[in-house]
Amino acid sequence: MEKNRQEKGQSTVKMRDVAALAGVSIATVSRYLNGNLDRMSKATAERVADAINKLNYVPNSAARQMITKSSGLVAVIAGNIDDFFSTEMFKGINAMLESEGYIGVLFDSNSDMARERHLMQIVSNQIFDGVILQPYNSVQVIQETIKRPMPIVLADREIDQSPWPQIVTNNYEISRKTTQYYKDRGFERVIMITSSLSMAANRRDRYYGIQSVINHIDVLEVSENSYNHRKVLQELMALINGSKENTLIFALKERWLTEFIPRLFYKGLIDNQHVAVTGFSDTGTAQYIDPQTKLIAQNPYLIGASSGEVMANLLQGKPQKPEKIVVPAKFG
Amino acid sequence: MEKNRQEKGQSTVKMRDVAALAGVSIATVSRYLNGNLDRMSKATAERVADAINKLNYVPNSAARQMITKSSGLVAVIAGNIDDFFSTEMFKGINAMLESEGYIGVLFDSNSDMARERHLMQIVSNQIFDGVILQPYNSVQVIQETIKRPMPIVLADREIDQSPWPQIVTNNYEISRKTTQYYKDRGFERVIMITSSLSMAANRRDRYYGIQSVINHIDVLEVSENSYNHRKVLQELMALINGSKENTLIFALKERWLTEFIPRLFYKGLIDNQHVAVTGFSDTGTAQYIDPQTKLIAQNPYLIGASSGEVMANLLQGKPQKPEKIVVPAKFG
Repeated sequence: MEKNRQEKGQSTVKMRDVAALAGVSIATVSRYLNGNLDRMSKATAERVADAINKLNYVPNSAARQMITKSSGLVAVIAGNIDDFFSTEMFKGINAMLESEGYIGVLFDSNSDMARERHLMQIVSNQIFDGVILQPYNSVQVIQETIKRPMPIVLADREIDQSPWPQIVTNNYEISRKTTQYYKDRGFERVIMITSSLSMAANRRDRYYGIQSVINHIDVLEVSENSYNHRKVLQELMALINGSKENTLIFALKERWLTEFIPRLFYKGLIDNQHVAVTGFSDTGTAQYIDPQTKLIAQNPYLIGASSGEVMANLLQGKPQKPEKIVVPAKFG
Repeated sequence: MEKNRQEKGQSTVKMRDVAALAGVSIATVSRYLNGNLDRMSKATAERVADAINKLNYVPNSAARQMITKSSGLVAVIAGNIDDFFSTEMFKGINAMLESEGYIGVLFDSNSDMARERHLMQIVSNQIFDGVILQPYNSVQVIQETIKRPMPIVLADREIDQSPWPQIVTNNYEISRKTTQYYKDRGFERVIMITSSLSMAANRRDRYYGIQSVINHIDVLEVSENSYNHRKVLQELMALINGSKENTLIFALKERWLTEFIPRLFYKGLIDNQHVAVTGFSDTGTAQYIDPQTKLIAQNPYLIGASSGEVMANLLQGKPQKPEKIVVPAKFG
């Protein structure tokens, strides 16, 4: 056995041979091989390329993984990739990961707990170095599913008692602050448009934030999967006309702004005096409906970048407390 | 060596042992392990679970990969994951792949040729079974970059002389048909709003489709990365007012509909008689601006599902010609 291993060793050029000939570190060769040239001088890159050619070195991920036990791939399991929030977050994650020589790959849990579990199982069985979750399942389920020891970071969705770092938005605070702005201007009642409140802690935090300022809230729940546009619009108009109080329409998701507000606006139902509109708008598209509308913008890119940074630290063995990092949203 | 291997064999429960005890095929055990229970009876799933428990079988992807040389992972390199088109396409890809026991993971090329090359290199070096591209690079570059023999499928963006199967939309035909509809109703001039025409074959095909029916086209190019909303709006209004011909505003991308059309509509500039609007709208959000507007809907989910089906066939060794499959878009 020993002899066999030695023979193999002699016949195979290793990454350290390339590094020695090029006069650089193994890490530099690794970065070169991963196409990560951002922080490498042209001269260094050329020396590494020359050494690879002279030694006829064939990079082999499987072999490299045997040594480093690292694929350089980080799995990102996002809630719903049709949401701009998720994809922008992924772009932020990748920006930070790639600057440290890793690369993120995206999985879509489709906001489904069973599917998220299935994906965690796959990630746990495959060659990923770490996983960033926009989680639906509980701490216990995550622990039971991801059996291999690997760094875990939670992004966007908060979980109680998380043993892992979490990067989240200030949902409660920004909803409170926004509602206060309108209360100061004479608004006494809120019509809140939201997807199912039972599903996500984020939405509940927003609801509590609004409620902490204005108590009179009519909640209009709209199913993300299927709804009758005309019917929802009629319910909305009935709600608007159903009270003489100055009313703020508060959409917990941009989609409800772009799908329902233009019609209300044409019908003259929104005058910014007796009836105003606000809501979470990550892409900013809703601002083109009416320039007077003030909106809440989260920063999914920064939430992603922070998550990527924390993950890179964990992968490099730097200490990282299971703390909660808050990336504030902005109103106005 | 031989003895050693035998000893190992005796101490390790294999998938075929599980299959034998459960009285099912190895493929069924594999599906069970991948959580792919859609087409499996509850009784079968329970028999497999029992056998796994009795034999204390530990599924190990690395070990499985040594035998099957398959990770079950298919890489999808999408153009820009912030586009609904790309993410819906990915959902379609996954629906088909997963029904065949594979799973898709998403990479974001960010519409950047160099970045796409880098990602193709990573995919080629890693443990992916195949790759589906929404390609920016040429056939030659793809061939030079993906060195390992693996199935390749092209989705959405057409490439000349592709040696791989392509799944595309009928961009030219649907643009032609849509323009003809308005020409028949007295429209003689088009204002086309588009991202840079030089970048993508898709956009050029749409342009040629419009041009084949109406020759008088004013092109308004808007940069995807940064533009002045007010300035573009003013240019658009100047163009509308600059001609007495009945004018069709034709947006090659939904984003230009949702960002510019609401303001034109409020200003009374769109009356559907002298000035009408149409365009590509994959999410359908634009229809809420004005219910009278007729739009073009591609079918990214079906384009993805077809791509996933072709990929699954290739992975299973079924013959698949390098043909072009057209998934038609719909107008109206």
